[in-house]
Amino acid sequence: MSMSLLEKFYSGDIQALSRLISEVENQSNGYQKIITAIYPKTGQAYKLGITGPPGAGKSSLVDVLVSQLVQERNKVGIIAVDPTSPFSGGAFLGDRIRMQNLSGKEEVFIRSMASRGSLGGLSATTFEACLILDAFGKDLIILETVGVGQIELEVAQHSDTMVVVLSPESGDSIQAFKAGLMEIGDIFVVNKSDREGAARLVVQLNMSLESKRKSEKWGYPVLSTTATTGQGVNELLQSLKQHRDFLHQQGLLAQRRKLQVKSQLQKVLENQIKLSVSNRFKSDLDWERLAEEIYQKKETPYSLADKILQSWRS
Amino acid sequence: MSMSLLEKFYSGDIQALSRLISEVENQSNGYQKIITAIYPKTGQAYKLGITGPPGAGKSSLVDVLVSQLVQERNKVGIIAVDPTSPFSGGAFLGDRIRMQNLSGKEEVFIRSMASRGSLGGLSATTFEACLILDAFGKDLIILETVGVGQIELEVAQHSDTMVVVLSPESGDSIQAFKAGLMEIGDIFVVNKSDREGAARLVVQLNMSLESKRKSEKWGYPVLSTTATTGQGVNELLQSLKQHRDFLHQQGLLAQRRKLQVKSQLQKVLENQIKLSVSNRFKSDLDWERLAEEIYQKKETPYSLADKILQSWRS
Repeated sequence: MSMSLLEKFYSGDIQALSRLISEVENQSNGYQKIITAIYPKTGQAYKLGITGPPGAGKSSLVDVLVSQLVQERNKVGIIAVDPTSPFSGGAFLGDRIRMQNLSGKEEVFIRSMASRGSLGGLSATTFEACLILDAFGKDLIILETVGVGQIELEVAQHSDTMVVVLSPESGDSIQAFKAGLMEIGDIFVVNKSDREGAARLVVQLNMSLESKRKSEKWGYPVLSTTATTGQGVNELLQSLKQHRDFLHQQGLLAQRRKLQVKSQLQKVLENQIKLSVSNRFKSDLDWERLAEEIYQKKETPYSLADKILQSWRS
Repeated sequence: MSMSLLEKFYSGDIQALSRLISEVENQSNGYQKIITAIYPKTGQAYKLGITGPPGAGKSSLVDVLVSQLVQERNKVGIIAVDPTSPFSGGAFLGDRIRMQNLSGKEEVFIRSMASRGSLGGLSATTFEACLILDAFGKDLIILETVGVGQIELEVAQHSDTMVVVLSPESGDSIQAFKAGLMEIGDIFVVNKSDREGAARLVVQLNMSLESKRKSEKWGYPVLSTTATTGQGVNELLQSLKQHRDFLHQQGLLAQRRKLQVKSQLQKVLENQIKLSVSNRFKSDLDWERLAEEIYQKKETPYSLADKILQSWRS
């Protein structure tokens, strides 16, 4: 990782941006130095999290939203976190498909990332990619993810404003409640609002948000959109700006940012320990030898874990 | 956690079994000692993983399968891993509903567990509960989970035989391919086989398994069941026994068990690391002070993580 790469990055070179994200994604040697170097330049971009059940039309909505934002001269970065096969490793919806829709727009940078990491969930890589887009000078970073599992909670922990997108398909509201999506959203969107059941879903959402609205100062709007026609997108943009202003006025943005930083620190710390422990096991052979000892009942996973950590500490 | 609890456990007391699993689930003080104590008694139970998309009828199928297994005098333990709200913490489908179906059968122990853990995925708790059921003397342990996200991969890593359950509902096959379910199954089941599209789904599955069947010695059967009528359940039982025998004969069971043990060790190690990180910051105040330093750009998550790690190791 040469300094000239960083220089190109600072000069606004998109290929350098892409390269840097790849280095981070692959945890190339010394990638942490790069992030440490760019870190002081971060904190300028506004971070928007978008989640919802599969098929709610998140990507289409993001695409029209971003087209609008670009017209308003915003520089936008999109990180699409795909719940991938842990086997194939890569992200399913490649950048290429999305790029076609947003092509020719230099102000938009889009990257698909897998939600890998041995325990699943959002990897440190995702927020590190956000840091890079932030330092690159993006005004807005959109973190888009499918609302299954617990990734959306972590996306919420890294976002300033969180949008939950639902559609009137059967069971979407149930899934939203099950997945805890109601608890993380600042703004709720019923997409595909021309379909049957949309009005009912809006009513359901409004009802379930009643008590939250009473106890907090934010109004938790429920909006109707149809991404395919662009209907409702302006209202969504308005709501986003209102929420940003609300956070500013109430002093809540600083509070959210500190929580983001806190969860970053914890993630980095866990990651560093894991890296430094696994560096002790250069080859998979070591793991297999240890597994053999447990299999033969000479050790237990707990006795061995203790020993490994003790030797790591000393 | 008194020794008398362990004594009761060894004497076959179901309440003691339930208590032990709760202690592990809550990570009560000293729970690792309990697992270390029972560890030598593990390795006897056969572990069956069952996964598939939501609504494929996994639970109903498990219920009829277990009824049959109990008639054949097997002692069965079921761990149902629910993808839960990280907020509510608990599992959605409580034990109670399921217990009604299998009630009066002392040989069956069923427990719902949340797939919590800060990084999502299967928590160490799940395989620890398996160890407890194993040491308790269960012949068969069923790990049942919804095939979304990456939990099913981890279930596969802890199972001797992996069954993937699909239904002819629209999109199930697509979801199976996307989620990598085809890659982890040993046996495939098309449940709700009386519905339209079932035969087509069987054909699709057979086609996609062709190359796998050629390159490996196992036949990867595709079975049709209707859990509500019990149709096909005997064939499924037959296939399960065939796969178990196949693993034995080919010496593959030991190989799978060693992989299980290896992933247990890695999970325990990661868990210990996380615990030791959060133990260092018992009070939330410390984290907030550190977050403040990063927020004010006096530090970065990386510089602080390095300092914290250095201070721990010295």
